[in-house]
Amino acid sequence: MNRIAVYPGTFDPVTNGHLDLIKRALEIFDQVIVGVAVGAKKKPVFDATERVRFVEESVKGLDRVKVESFDCLLVDFVLSRNAHVILKGLRAVSDYEHELQMASMNRRLSNLIETVFMMAGEEFSFISSSLVKEVYQLKGNVNGLVSPVVEEGLREKYFSLKS
Amino acid sequence: MNRIAVYPGTFDPVTNGHLDLIKRALEIFDQVIVGVAVGAKKKPVFDATERVRFVEESVKGLDRVKVESFDCLLVDFVLSRNAHVILKGLRAVSDYEHELQMASMNRRLSNLIETVFMMAGEEFSFISSSLVKEVYQLKGNVNGLVSPVVEEGLREKYFSLKS
Amino acid sequence: MNRIAVYPGTFDPVTNGHLDLIKRALEIFDQVIVGVAVGAKKKPVFDATERVRFVEESVKGLDRVKVESFDCLLVDFVLSRNAHVILKGLRAVSDYEHELQMASMNRRLSNLIETVFMMAGEEFSFISSSLVKEVYQLKGNVNGLVSPVVEEGLREKYFSLKS
Amino acid sequence: MNRIAVYPGTFDPVTNGHLDLIKRALEIFDQVIVGVAVGAKKKPVFDATERVRFVEESVKGLDRVKVESFDCLLVDFVLSRNAHVILKGLRAVSDYEHELQMASMNRRLSNLIETVFMMAGEEFSFISSSLVKEVYQLKGNVNGLVSPVVEEGLREKYFSLKS
Amino acid sequence: MNRIAVYPGTFDPVTNGHLDLIKRALEIFDQVIVGVAVGAKKKPVFDATERVRFVEESVKGLDRVKVESFDCLLVDFVLSRNAHVILKGLRAVSDYEHELQMASMNRRLSNLIETVFMMAGEEFSFISSSLVKEVYQLKGNVNGLVSPVVEEGLREKYFSLKS
Amino acid sequence: MNRIAVYPGTFDPVTNGHLDLIKRALEIFDQVIVGVAVGAKKKPVFDATERVRFVEESVKGLDRVKVESFDCLLVDFVLSRNAHVILKGLRAVSDYEHELQMASMNRRLSNLIETVFMMAGEEFSFISSSLVKEVYQLKGNVNGLVSPVVEEGLREKYFSLKS
Repeated sequence: MNRIAVYPGTFDPVTNGHLDLIKRALEIFDQVIVGVAVGAKKKPVFDATERVRFVEESVKGLDRVKVESFDCLLVDFVLSRNAHVILKGLRAVSDYEHELQMASMNRRLSNLIETVFMMAGEEFSFISSSLVKEVYQLKGNVNGLVSPVVEEGLREKYFSLKS
Repeated sequence: MNRIAVYPGTFDPVTNGHLDLIKRALEIFDQVIVGVAVGAKKKPVFDATERVRFVEESVKGLDRVKVESFDCLLVDFVLSRNAHVILKGLRAVSDYEHELQMASMNRRLSNLIETVFMMAGEEFSFISSSLVKEVYQLKGNVNGLVSPVVEEGLREKYFSLKS
Repeated sequence: MNRIAVYPGTFDPVTNGHLDLIKRALEIFDQVIVGVAVGAKKKPVFDATERVRFVEESVKGLDRVKVESFDCLLVDFVLSRNAHVILKGLRAVSDYEHELQMASMNRRLSNLIETVFMMAGEEFSFISSSLVKEVYQLKGNVNGLVSPVVEEGLREKYFSLKS
Repeated sequence: MNRIAVYPGTFDPVTNGHLDLIKRALEIFDQVIVGVAVGAKKKPVFDATERVRFVEESVKGLDRVKVESFDCLLVDFVLSRNAHVILKGLRAVSDYEHELQMASMNRRLSNLIETVFMMAGEEFSFISSSLVKEVYQLKGNVNGLVSPVVEEGLREKYFSLKS
Repeated sequence: MNRIAVYPGTFDPVTNGHLDLIKRALEIFDQVIVGVAVGAKKKPVFDATERVRFVEESVKGLDRVKVESFDCLLVDFVLSRNAHVILKGLRAVSDYEHELQMASMNRRLSNLIETVFMMAGEEFSFISSSLVKEVYQLKGNVNGLVSPVVEEGLREKYFSLKS
Repeated sequence: MNRIAVYPGTFDPVTNGHLDLIKRALEIFDQVIVGVAVGAKKKPVFDATERVRFVEESVKGLDRVKVESFDCLLVDFVLSRNAHVILKGLRAVSDYEHELQMASMNRRLSNLIETVFMMAGEEFSFISSSLVKEVYQLKGNVNGLVSPVVEEGLREKYFSLKS
């Protein structure tokens, strides 16, 4: 029985909350494939290549983690990777409702796939990609919220001379 | 005592969840007027004429259902149709909060009007117009989620040569 | 088409929030049958006869309202009264979740029956039977929260010499 | 890497919602240990032996499922079985909040243990052990909600001559 | 011990719900600084100067209220004003989740700052800046929802010849 | 302007989450009166004298904190102490709904009193008095969750020879 879980998201950019979840998922699954959604509804600040690179550099040293972008239906991506588990982190109540709705839809689209939820660590419960960007733009300190490579990416995006 | 209920929404496009609610509402009300909001905040994918047509074709054969677009305050539309009931479907908790807020506002705008809620069937609880569009665009199967006329409309919108 | 709605509850005791809902339901339904559940899980403070009497005296003058106790499955009570609508008031989010669960179960027990929700008036949104009893026992003022006959009943229950 | 998940609960009695979750968990875990909590806060209707038997008979034929009662801290039970995953089903929002709180506490009690959530199938979303008992006592039909052995147990508990 | 509270928001435009909260906050704090966020994520309809003016004119006569715009991290604004309390109004459940997340982030950004929540009066629980604009645009009556200066501003924005 | 806040509760027993809130409230209020409700609905494990003593010993060294039991309507207790602020900690969504309801009722009982909410620290977000008791009874480690005097009290209550 293979135990591959796909952890999908926009990861714009990946936060330490995401990384905590990935590490904890490795205790349960043989492999975690981080699936970076290329064409997110809310137009991402970082392009898919950057977002994949941020995750890759942040998970360096973690065996059994793969990072890939995808631009199709999530269930098709999952099946194409020979996986049958979608992994989602849960935080707020409104997250939860939306996640249940997505999980129901995905189960309908393929009954071979199961969605499994893990809880964000409470020390990460207030971190989100959008909040990190908002704080950084206003010159707030994001140390401890994202990995150094992401902080560097934020600096380039928001405060480099070129942009 | 007339028993006309107005069932308002964007219907972009109408789903089988909406249709299920309409059918069940006919057990309670003499007439159900489906009110298609022309100028929705979130810019609709289908224009009002298309959205009205999708509902009309989907409710064909159901007596006592009328479909109309409106471009004014909901309570004014309701009163102009000689109705005094707004019908809403309920699904998620965040829906619910927002719906209660709208119902309070509408009651304040006209105390002749009452909002009545019915629960979406649990087999439709994961369907929403936006999710249907998202799935269809990514080539997912929406059969059973929308009526054939809507599926045809989606095909034309997203995959016809002209567009 | 008859339009009888059954409004079930423990009514231990009936509050002005309940009465507001009954009045508003009369704008929509031909008849409202207030169904007083005899054997509530949470042991009631007032017995079923008292609870029925409180409702009856509180709705005096309202035609088209009937008050009855019932000691069977709600759907069986509804069907036996030739009704097919269960009317529930909604308030808090936790109410809501529980109510959706009950409505699903009741639909499964009889698909002839539909549950319809109306929103408690915001001025009554903080009133509940249990809070009224708690406040009254601690000598708080419940005027405006319950009808005079209920206030009299509370006085006898909690502060009469005999008890 | 062993993949044993403990699925804890009162199971008073086990429902088809629980059984659905167990089956789906077997797609993800090597073994599912159903942990029947002996001393539940809310005094159970069935004693622990009966509750274990109901689960056992209901999962007959499912390899890789074990049923055991426990009367200690959940994390101690989990560790004593050489497991490190607690499996919980999620349904309502209020469930969810409580479950997150329990998961945080359990993580604090042992950081070797992870809680994983799976969603109840929407067709089972309205079933709970307490609702099943309530419906059965009022002579409602619970066929399809519980397995035959549980229905038989309910009959004996509530309607046998001896009791 | 100074007791200055900063009440931040977009105030696009200020409503009577906001004003009610400001008045009630004055019973608890020595000074309330209304902080008008210049660069809101959702592009405001009124510019910062207008939004500040609307608040100023609406709180005329209330000593101990100051109105200022800010264009930096909220915690930096709070500290620069020698305050250590952020005041937020609470309404819906989804508000609540988001507010807790923001409060956690702000506490992390500065542990000198505490977020304090007050409940919107139930008679204002359905008012929001965006709903007011929506209703006004559709020619609904917003009297009692906003102060006269705001109503005048809405008229100019949406119905003046020039615009 | 006096700034006395009453922090009411059952405190059965006081936890480190409560103590964290008290300390943070002292940054905002001149005095915090911890109000221990004598006659709680859910019959307390510790009697009022013990519960008061646990709080008193836990806040030793904190000036400006007073601990008192009360056995009347909360608003009457607050007014009798010349206070006009009720302080509540917020955690879960279901808490929140109930707290809003209580705050509305209390405002109706006395419009001189305002309820103010502060957020439990996220590191304490999973602690509740009932969970602490449950864990302790099952021999779980509550170190760090309650103060030593409470742990001693729990030991005597649950594991002393006498009981």
